[in-house]
Amino acid sequence: MYTVTVRDHFMIAHSFRGEAFGPAQRLHGATYVVDVEFRRATLDESGMVVDIGRAGEVLHATLGELNYRNLDDEPAFTGRNTTTEFLARVVFDRIVAAIGRGDLGDGARAVDSIRVTLHESHVASAGFEGRVSAAP
Amino acid sequence: MYTVTVRDHFMIAHSFRGEAFGPAQRLHGATYVVDVEFRRATLDESGMVVDIGRAGEVLHATLGELNYRNLDDEPAFTGRNTTTEFLARVVFDRIVAAIGRGDLGDGARAVDSIRVTLHESHVASAGFEGRVSAAP
Amino acid sequence: MYTVTVRDHFMIAHSFRGEAFGPAQRLHGATYVVDVEFRRATLDESGMVVDIGRAGEVLHATLGELNYRNLDDEPAFTGRNTTTEFLARVVFDRIVAAIGRGDLGDGARAVDSIRVTLHESHVASAGFEGRVSAAP
Amino acid sequence: MYTVTVRDHFMIAHSFRGEAFGPAQRLHGATYVVDVEFRRATLDESGMVVDIGRAGEVLHATLGELNYRNLDDEPAFTGRNTTTEFLARVVFDRIVAAIGRGDLGDGARAVDSIRVTLHESHVASAGFEGRVSAAP
Amino acid sequence: MYTVTVRDHFMIAHSFRGEAFGPAQRLHGATYVVDVEFRRATLDESGMVVDIGRAGEVLHATLGELNYRNLDDEPAFTGRNTTTEFLARVVFDRIVAAIGRGDLGDGARAVDSIRVTLHESHVASAGFEGRVSAAP
Amino acid sequence: MYTVTVRDHFMIAHSFRGEAFGPAQRLHGATYVVDVEFRRATLDESGMVVDIGRAGEVLHATLGELNYRNLDDEPAFTGRNTTTEFLARVVFDRIVAAIGRGDLGDGARAVDSIRVTLHESHVASAGFEGRVSAAP
Repeated sequence: MYTVTVRDHFMIAHSFRGEAFGPAQRLHGATYVVDVEFRRATLDESGMVVDIGRAGEVLHATLGELNYRNLDDEPAFTGRNTTTEFLARVVFDRIVAAIGRGDLGDGARAVDSIRVTLHESHVASAGFEGRVSAAP
Repeated sequence: MYTVTVRDHFMIAHSFRGEAFGPAQRLHGATYVVDVEFRRATLDESGMVVDIGRAGEVLHATLGELNYRNLDDEPAFTGRNTTTEFLARVVFDRIVAAIGRGDLGDGARAVDSIRVTLHESHVASAGFEGRVSAAP
Repeated sequence: MYTVTVRDHFMIAHSFRGEAFGPAQRLHGATYVVDVEFRRATLDESGMVVDIGRAGEVLHATLGELNYRNLDDEPAFTGRNTTTEFLARVVFDRIVAAIGRGDLGDGARAVDSIRVTLHESHVASAGFEGRVSAAP
Repeated sequence: MYTVTVRDHFMIAHSFRGEAFGPAQRLHGATYVVDVEFRRATLDESGMVVDIGRAGEVLHATLGELNYRNLDDEPAFTGRNTTTEFLARVVFDRIVAAIGRGDLGDGARAVDSIRVTLHESHVASAGFEGRVSAAP
Repeated sequence: MYTVTVRDHFMIAHSFRGEAFGPAQRLHGATYVVDVEFRRATLDESGMVVDIGRAGEVLHATLGELNYRNLDDEPAFTGRNTTTEFLARVVFDRIVAAIGRGDLGDGARAVDSIRVTLHESHVASAGFEGRVSAAP
Repeated sequence: MYTVTVRDHFMIAHSFRGEAFGPAQRLHGATYVVDVEFRRATLDESGMVVDIGRAGEVLHATLGELNYRNLDDEPAFTGRNTTTEFLARVVFDRIVAAIGRGDLGDGARAVDSIRVTLHESHVASAGFEGRVSAAP
């Protein structure tokens, strides 16, 4: 299995509902440093998993939809706790959708699975990984 | 598959037996920076894999049983080489036991597998991963 | 010159005023991973710059006053842009005040200067350094 | 599953063919920081996955065959784009061959799979992982 | 003293002349991860050392003039060994020139000194720091 | 001011005397990841601060005298607490002595100052910096 991973980040405000979250029930925020790993069994004819330049651009555009926002005000997340693991799934779904639209090029449709990791600090991170074909 | 990872560290003395270990047969020591990744297929009703605060506390308590010790004197390790990979399994078993006791909350019993990584320097690490249900 | 550095983090929401900030004028947030370096010319009789355990506790308490908050609502920052460099100075002033109160022990009063660095992402950080005696 | 990972690096020049590579079609270069993870189900009688010292030496020797070279001039890569993911496979194949020759000791033949990761910058990496028995 | 630091990278080919360089006399290459720290005594009226967005753009443009090139073919470096420390000075001079041209805004002219660090691997880096007013 | 920095590590056992050290009074250990920064005002005729290859070798040899040892048994440290900041000074003095012996080459005698940093975990480090001419 071959892999390519690109990194970028976004910065948001949000709050959580539920006693388990303690002081994180208050409005606060986070920087998420995001790694997206693309996985496939064979390389394309150029020797690539995906075009790493386009992968970086697609990740940047995907995170741009979330960056510098208060997630409590985003209609897409109404009624949901935007935990780090939940947001990893959001990024996963949007990257898979970008592949489906051809934003990473036709070859990227051969990507088998993707792992998204969001680092929220030097001591905590969360992620989601799944098959591209299993995305909604 | 969703994941949450927390990091902490512990500092110990130990020595190894066997010519393969060369100068590491002498009494020396190590800082281990420890990552524990919790994995499960679905999020709980709060949107979490595990309560990241409790996960950090459980990891800190688990490493506290090893921290600032000479492992050569620990009865639990008599006759064993406390290599980094061996210690990764020790941490794995103790985290799984903590889940079983309910220390991470009832929801954490849905965790499917765990990966423990011990970083012993900027150039070497070791780990153990396994199903929670396969632990002793 | 001897140094000791400890690391911790805090997570906040805020917004900026001024066209230069572009989309960061919207309410968003950040994780700040904070390094505080203590500097002095000689070691104390125990061989320390500061008690590293107490230094970590004082840093944790200092960041706890900011953690999980919307800085736009903090009276202490009314009318100020809470940029990363501004917050580095805030942390500096509060650590110096803690030394003055004796929270790091009497020996810590021999600390000559302090450097505070706030990492806001994998590609950006800001800091403040100064003499302890020059603090307000 | 137990793991041991060692890190080293190499520095090369190369160029790519194909419009997808844009300015990287020009002769340029890279530092690759390389992580090799060895995986097996059980520890050997010494408590090891592999002898971490020998693993580091084998990795250093393997990268030494590539280090300080212009890959465009290497006969082994004629007609191939030496992308990061392609080079990860090269390192994988050579480490597997070294295990086969006994360079990591007889015990290392119990290694089940290997993951090679090449970090080309702070924002991009690529890798290859596979079963040892599946190597050519 | 307040500081702001931004990070970016570039990838080049080059070779060195002189027996001291050993195998690095061959054509090879490197990724340089570059940190540029801007330093000044007071913040501007917005609370900034420099506009961090513009600083990142100026750094990206500066490194773009070097990126994906064989430095042995660059007229600016004829007869010079493009060591990491030499390149740190090149980046320093070009950032200072950009400040002089107003590329970072008028306020950036208050920057007192700059430190440039080039990380060439996980175990080696080099840098140059100096007063802005002392640049050629 | 130009700089070159090299990194290596060593692993030791030790204990501390004094109530301030709490549980660290027990025999334990640490991995120290060591950065040594060499500083000088001008480059030599090859374009170097120091020969980075020789600098790495000298650092490796210096740390080799400490590696895989119980510092409580080292005559050189009798009656001293081998804190991280104390050990940074030890490494500084030994690197300066190596320069004096010519181990880094004649050119290295132009090095003006050195900064040694020992990282003992992901959250703590200590260091010593000084003029080469001021060493004992």
